[in-house]
Amino acid sequence: MTKYSFYDDYSEGAHIDILRPLPRAARDQQKAYGDDEFSEEARKAIRSLIGADEARIYFTPSGTGANLLSVASHLRPHEAVIAAESGHIVGEEGGAIEATGHQILTEPPGVDGKLTPGMIYFAFDRSWQSDFQPKPKMVFIANATESGTVYTKSELKAIADICLSLKLFLLLDGARLGVALTSSHNDLSLKDIYDLTDIFWIGGTTNGAMFGEAVVIKHPSFGVDFPYHMNQQGALLAKGRFLGIQFRALFQDDLFFRIARDANSAAAELSSSLVKMGLELWVRTESNRVFPIVPPALAEELQKHFDFCVWKHLSDESLVIRLVTSWQTRQYEVQRFCKIVQKWTKKSSCEL
Amino acid sequence: MTKYSFYDDYSEGAHIDILRPLPRAARDQQKAYGDDEFSEEARKAIRSLIGADEARIYFTPSGTGANLLSVASHLRPHEAVIAAESGHIVGEEGGAIEATGHQILTEPPGVDGKLTPGMIYFAFDRSWQSDFQPKPKMVFIANATESGTVYTKSELKAIADICLSLKLFLLLDGARLGVALTSSHNDLSLKDIYDLTDIFWIGGTTNGAMFGEAVVIKHPSFGVDFPYHMNQQGALLAKGRFLGIQFRALFQDDLFFRIARDANSAAAELSSSLVKMGLELWVRTESNRVFPIVPPALAEELQKHFDFCVWKHLSDESLVIRLVTSWQTRQYEVQRFCKIVQKWTKKSSCEL
Amino acid sequence: MTKYSFYDDYSEGAHIDILRPLPRAARDQQKAYGDDEFSEEARKAIRSLIGADEARIYFTPSGTGANLLSVASHLRPHEAVIAAESGHIVGEEGGAIEATGHQILTEPPGVDGKLTPGMIYFAFDRSWQSDFQPKPKMVFIANATESGTVYTKSELKAIADICLSLKLFLLLDGARLGVALTSSHNDLSLKDIYDLTDIFWIGGTTNGAMFGEAVVIKHPSFGVDFPYHMNQQGALLAKGRFLGIQFRALFQDDLFFRIARDANSAAAELSSSLVKMGLELWVRTESNRVFPIVPPALAEELQKHFDFCVWKHLSDESLVIRLVTSWQTRQYEVQRFCKIVQKWTKKSSCEL
Amino acid sequence: MTKYSFYDDYSEGAHIDILRPLPRAARDQQKAYGDDEFSEEARKAIRSLIGADEARIYFTPSGTGANLLSVASHLRPHEAVIAAESGHIVGEEGGAIEATGHQILTEPPGVDGKLTPGMIYFAFDRSWQSDFQPKPKMVFIANATESGTVYTKSELKAIADICLSLKLFLLLDGARLGVALTSSHNDLSLKDIYDLTDIFWIGGTTNGAMFGEAVVIKHPSFGVDFPYHMNQQGALLAKGRFLGIQFRALFQDDLFFRIARDANSAAAELSSSLVKMGLELWVRTESNRVFPIVPPALAEELQKHFDFCVWKHLSDESLVIRLVTSWQTRQYEVQRFCKIVQKWTKKSSCEL
Repeated sequence: MTKYSFYDDYSEGAHIDILRPLPRAARDQQKAYGDDEFSEEARKAIRSLIGADEARIYFTPSGTGANLLSVASHLRPHEAVIAAESGHIVGEEGGAIEATGHQILTEPPGVDGKLTPGMIYFAFDRSWQSDFQPKPKMVFIANATESGTVYTKSELKAIADICLSLKLFLLLDGARLGVALTSSHNDLSLKDIYDLTDIFWIGGTTNGAMFGEAVVIKHPSFGVDFPYHMNQQGALLAKGRFLGIQFRALFQDDLFFRIARDANSAAAELSSSLVKMGLELWVRTESNRVFPIVPPALAEELQKHFDFCVWKHLSDESLVIRLVTSWQTRQYEVQRFCKIVQKWTKKSSCEL
Repeated sequence: MTKYSFYDDYSEGAHIDILRPLPRAARDQQKAYGDDEFSEEARKAIRSLIGADEARIYFTPSGTGANLLSVASHLRPHEAVIAAESGHIVGEEGGAIEATGHQILTEPPGVDGKLTPGMIYFAFDRSWQSDFQPKPKMVFIANATESGTVYTKSELKAIADICLSLKLFLLLDGARLGVALTSSHNDLSLKDIYDLTDIFWIGGTTNGAMFGEAVVIKHPSFGVDFPYHMNQQGALLAKGRFLGIQFRALFQDDLFFRIARDANSAAAELSSSLVKMGLELWVRTESNRVFPIVPPALAEELQKHFDFCVWKHLSDESLVIRLVTSWQTRQYEVQRFCKIVQKWTKKSSCEL
Repeated sequence: MTKYSFYDDYSEGAHIDILRPLPRAARDQQKAYGDDEFSEEARKAIRSLIGADEARIYFTPSGTGANLLSVASHLRPHEAVIAAESGHIVGEEGGAIEATGHQILTEPPGVDGKLTPGMIYFAFDRSWQSDFQPKPKMVFIANATESGTVYTKSELKAIADICLSLKLFLLLDGARLGVALTSSHNDLSLKDIYDLTDIFWIGGTTNGAMFGEAVVIKHPSFGVDFPYHMNQQGALLAKGRFLGIQFRALFQDDLFFRIARDANSAAAELSSSLVKMGLELWVRTESNRVFPIVPPALAEELQKHFDFCVWKHLSDESLVIRLVTSWQTRQYEVQRFCKIVQKWTKKSSCEL
Repeated sequence: MTKYSFYDDYSEGAHIDILRPLPRAARDQQKAYGDDEFSEEARKAIRSLIGADEARIYFTPSGTGANLLSVASHLRPHEAVIAAESGHIVGEEGGAIEATGHQILTEPPGVDGKLTPGMIYFAFDRSWQSDFQPKPKMVFIANATESGTVYTKSELKAIADICLSLKLFLLLDGARLGVALTSSHNDLSLKDIYDLTDIFWIGGTTNGAMFGEAVVIKHPSFGVDFPYHMNQQGALLAKGRFLGIQFRALFQDDLFFRIARDANSAAAELSSSLVKMGLELWVRTESNRVFPIVPPALAEELQKHFDFCVWKHLSDESLVIRLVTSWQTRQYEVQRFCKIVQKWTKKSSCEL
């Protein structure tokens, strides 16, 4: 790539500690389809973190796959998912949920992208008032959210409570669970996530792995049947060991959390520098996504040197850009980015 | 695994030449979702082998995914696939084709597992006689077949001809295209495969890769829209480079074909030894699958030492077992297997 | 139609006792979507026949709809249906079951078209042996069968027993339940049907109605949610009264059974006449379908005067034709048919 | 029903001119599945109105069925529909479109419920900006709209133009096409509707029929294959004559338009009376739906005597109610309704 990218966290490769064990793991025969030793060890490590020996854990190649499998395995054809309008399953997954036959009932969230009990209740109620809408049966949230914010324990608890009372399954998309759990705003543990949801998944792809997500299922019957769904959707890899070995590595020596912390640190640095230079943020920086508000001309100048996403047009004078960091984000590039901003803002606060 | 396995060709790991370039490939930023340099180079290598610059090529994580995407992208909801009853999509993929909404019209094949123009015509005609069956629109074959046999050029040409005349798409599942094209019974080139089919895929998973298949699409409009289907089915990996790098390696220095040749050699050796010792074969060994007919007691004895699949019960005195080899199959284990057979058959022809 | 038809039982119109109450029923306002008085009365009549106040009953426009709704409402995506190869859902419904995402596991039946416990067990076992097939979860049978035969109480009981032990739902397609229950070979009551199945439906279309089938559901939660499925599949008629009024009429004054008996009588007469004249039957005539074996030249001669279906080519000298009768079948036409056969067979046994 | 209902237009029965020909039509044998003489004559009548001999016309039992079949027959799995948020397919059809696998991209309309070229362009563009949304390929509108308004010729022409330029199919849901085409605000003919859309349907259910809609398809290949989709979705009635006979009646002696005109007249009378008495309308009355704004206490009073739908809460002091009329709406009931309003408003303008 010709320009350095803050576009996303998957333009990066994979962490060396993920790759290093591959040749050894590739040497011997192993049972296929996820019944290998590496997958088993990875499961054991995750189970010990969530304190649940009975949890069923499966590794899928992609996050969209993890979401559609979660929905397909838990819902009947006439049941629908409640999600924030900004939810990843709504506008980013090519209609995967609809392709499995389910409608998504959306509510517009605030800038923090969070779903609230009120929104869930409103969507539920709106649907129940009509005899002709699908039956809401699942709530979808992502942590960190698409806006990079993180759910607090009390927020998640409140959502779990309303799900319980309305008999809705709670699915947590953890594509960026690493940066959520290591956020300075976080007070949740992996165990809390397991306790408060019905099904969730831990993102490997954006957190140092080559690919792969770990789906954790609470209900035994859904858990036992999950491989059927995986096979049916093309998500069951024959050489499952290559998913297992990555997650074994991630959950050894705290690697998963170290990678996430590095991503958060880079974002925090970038964010506070931009704020010091006088930029406003569209939403508070809580994980690895920074959303400064910039004038269009500055955005244009920055685009000559960097790749990033223009998130939202606020007015003719200001737009929101999205900067995403990773464990590999180079400090030099963060400084270079800030210098351009600094020149523009004629301030000198970018001393990194 | 406690016993050496001839059960399949995906209990093996990955070829070291596939793994070696990973750390370097993981270092820098690359465009996501398959637009990286490695995928582009892999495509270029494949395009040059098939002599078609215009072919669209995509990398998917799994073979079941490759099949369901091929069907989903080419058929309308009321259209059906014709396949041999033994076809992989019929009984091995968890109902993936039906889950995308399509019926499979099956015909019973001979022991070689091949679909013939006659079978295609019969299935087509049977369906057209009824106003109430789905419309046949695609033919599915696998090369090598599920019985390890390979299609000759004239056989494939005859199938392509009937597909053309009946306006059926031809899909070739190349999960084991490597061992097919390097079979001593083969007279097809990769270019022939491209020329004679509408869509086919090249199996990486069973041919040395960690995972991944390369789907090659002829029709431009289906080709351009294929990524929509991939995304929708959870088959679009964010860090597509890790598929690209593997296929780049496979199509450098003839690696793809060398790996396949090694698998075929091991099978040929095993097959001829068993025949020399007096065993009959259920079907001729043409690639990496050997199907000896053995008495149940011998099968039982062998199972104490080896893993393999009991394929078919022929009678109380004889059953067919399936032995699958790979590029990693150890000669020592082949010899050990033969010795047990030899002891049983009281013959001494297993001089390896 | 220029030729009199024995092709099917839905080329007829509707019974006058079905039509007569329509103008009155059309006069006043009624609740929509099946909550009208007529539907309620029809339900009451059916519930009283099956002796189950708690049964949920819904009226759908078509038999294919009744089958696909039964499957969609009871199965999860990875679950499959076991059926005889000759089953209506296999080859006559345009792939409706597959379009809802489910695979059908088929077994070849005998000429009587019946599914047996052995066949169910075999299909179940075949699927369980593989990790890669969908999970069998429902058994589909039709009574009368596609061959016009009827299940006896002990046969149905045996099927129900194996379903129970294998945890399979039992779905009975009653498109021709009328002619089954009034067959001289029948020993089942409507109550037995309810008791022994999980879901079944009573065919109105082929039994005097303009259109419509009554689906009877045992399991409360599936029953309560059924209207969601109906709406989602376009099977929920706004003016549900026009289904209700027909079924109210059918279950008043024994009309349903009288219509069916008339159809059976016509078939019995036709069948015994043909046998007397020396024709053999392919399968015993048990309801309103007669399957004589005839030489091709006779079939050709008959086709000049009548419409019917050529069912099967047995040899160059003999084929099976299918003759279907209804409550409206004209005796004159039966006699005319027999006379042509008589002339051919040079026998004079067609004294009707 | 205990209270007179202005809730909808399908709590009514059927027009006597629809029912009268039934007994005669039921007498003789007819080809099944829509190939009968009555359906053929009905098609001929419709073809002559739209001036298109080549148009394919099919009769389906329900409007939801007509919509889902229109979508299923025209779209590939990765293609999406653009619709107004208030569109019938969005919130009233139980997720039918999603159940066939397609996402709906919605835009919020004005109070008139109309989709505009600008909204279409915006939805299209929003989706094209993302690589990860399904591909928009169809536009859905209803005429009359869900708000009872009607599209003018220039409005429909503008939508057709943008569809053409963006290569989108245009589907017009004509559940209430009768009241639209006979609206005093209408300048469209049935021929215009055919010329400007790709597929549309003519609602019978809400316009005097017992049930049934006529789907009119322009593109030959979609048209020819449509019965496959109908069969697959359970929408192909065996005794198709009972759909054909109704549409033959509707398009004889102008019945279709007379029925619609009567519904519109009743609405116009009701609407103008309410306005005279000082009520405001939420949206102009253009067909058979009247949306007065009333204080909650008046709504409560009216609900003691009438059934109707509370459409929208505007504030604590005012809500919108929906009153729907039909060809059977009794003038006496309209007067009774007005009297209650009159008493409330203390005005005396309800001289009917």
